[in-house]
Amino acid sequence: MCQLLGMNCNVPTDICFSFTGFQARGGLTDHHRDGWGIAFFEGKGVRVFLDPCASIESPVAELVRNYPIRSLNVIAHIRKATQGEMRLDNTHPFQRELWGRYWIFAHNGNLIDFSPQLDGRFRPVGSTDSELAFCHIMQSLASRHPEGMPAPDVLHRTLRDLATEIGGHGEFNFMLSNGERLFAHCSSHLAYIVRKAPFAVAHLSDQDVAVDFERLTTPQDRVAVIATTPLTDNETWTLIEPGNLLSFSHGEPEDLGATETLAFTSQSVTN
Amino acid sequence: MCQLLGMNCNVPTDICFSFTGFQARGGLTDHHRDGWGIAFFEGKGVRVFLDPCASIESPVAELVRNYPIRSLNVIAHIRKATQGEMRLDNTHPFQRELWGRYWIFAHNGNLIDFSPQLDGRFRPVGSTDSELAFCHIMQSLASRHPEGMPAPDVLHRTLRDLATEIGGHGEFNFMLSNGERLFAHCSSHLAYIVRKAPFAVAHLSDQDVAVDFERLTTPQDRVAVIATTPLTDNETWTLIEPGNLLSFSHGEPEDLGATETLAFTSQSVTN
Repeated sequence: MCQLLGMNCNVPTDICFSFTGFQARGGLTDHHRDGWGIAFFEGKGVRVFLDPCASIESPVAELVRNYPIRSLNVIAHIRKATQGEMRLDNTHPFQRELWGRYWIFAHNGNLIDFSPQLDGRFRPVGSTDSELAFCHIMQSLASRHPEGMPAPDVLHRTLRDLATEIGGHGEFNFMLSNGERLFAHCSSHLAYIVRKAPFAVAHLSDQDVAVDFERLTTPQDRVAVIATTPLTDNETWTLIEPGNLLSFSHGEPEDLGATETLAFTSQSVTN
Repeated sequence: MCQLLGMNCNVPTDICFSFTGFQARGGLTDHHRDGWGIAFFEGKGVRVFLDPCASIESPVAELVRNYPIRSLNVIAHIRKATQGEMRLDNTHPFQRELWGRYWIFAHNGNLIDFSPQLDGRFRPVGSTDSELAFCHIMQSLASRHPEGMPAPDVLHRTLRDLATEIGGHGEFNFMLSNGERLFAHCSSHLAYIVRKAPFAVAHLSDQDVAVDFERLTTPQDRVAVIATTPLTDNETWTLIEPGNLLSFSHGEPEDLGATETLAFTSQSVTN
């Protein structure tokens, strides 16, 4: 199983602390050594750092851990290959442009007998089921909303339908962002935490590293961190119930008329 | 004027030496401080490092200079903004996918009264004339060759026509690569060198740094380096005559039935 990490904030925030714990899962505290990547949105722009080697040994990961890039939306992925060789073109996250915005996608899972009809507008470059699913999502968004980016609740509904359809082919945990919102779909494992005032000290599960967010934040800051499994061992993370797609905006899950998704399906866990 | 750098090789080669001189132009030996970027193809995959700050002060540039990424096709760009603010989404090189391949584009120049009709398949995310030209090129390739990637000579001819058309709007030096070939179009300034056996010592123009390629290569290696102005002061660079589009493959310019382009228009220069 791969590892996913996402962050959505109301003010540009760096991900150095969470990434420190996450990076350890790429060969140190976990066995995902088949490449890793991370995408940072800055305004409408995005930069993606990829390295088709273990994150714990990656000079690029060292840069990311030590160079505070402030972003509203971040998606990171550590790969344990299921389909597709260990190559750069199979390394998540993947990037495409639609409606004059960049879209970033990363997937954890495995899709079986999944061969959507592609019309050629978005084609996979590599050989993963993940990039194929991403191209199918992009093509479906483009064809179902030919007028351009729909309203947030409509976009969420289309993505939820697509996630359910593709999820019928197997495990399909994913994160998707266009720089405005971050969508997180849970098929088996995904948890999140919203950090806001009053801030406290957080301690990583994967490394003996702690940070006092009280000293690094203002009372207005709000940051949602989403990960395959909780990254800290002294905070309360919320498990997302399988089958749900959450939309994060301004550092918290949005209520997009999706009460049926949110109210009854999140369960809290203290680690 | 921005600075362009490209490399095309017959075996995966790192660009650390050339990049050392190139990086200095982003704020040290030249005044281009409005962001920089570099793209490395590895197989069909590509990784793009972008930083919307001066390359001479960029931690990402330090990584690129010291982490030898071996690639057959590299495109780098240092920006001196003409159109579009200094933002990440205006930072070259730009990336899109067409025909299941990534395409990378960087531009040096300034286009006036350039407003092509875009059908929406490729849309600029930022506000530069450069990304607009790239989207126009991608859309035109897709519509003129609906069957997919054409033969190299056909692709070259289409790109040459497009370069001439767009170049009618102003200065249009650019580099474009799909990971197989690197296309370099000269509108005003562009020079290249082909390094092959017998290799010698090369000395940078922008920094007092030399490298003995004899010690780092095998007799079969061949590397073409293309830049806005020559990067070394003890080698013979070839100036590309304005109005020409060269296609580089396996470390040298290809003859694609374009004798009219090559034979009469290159002039040598010793620096």
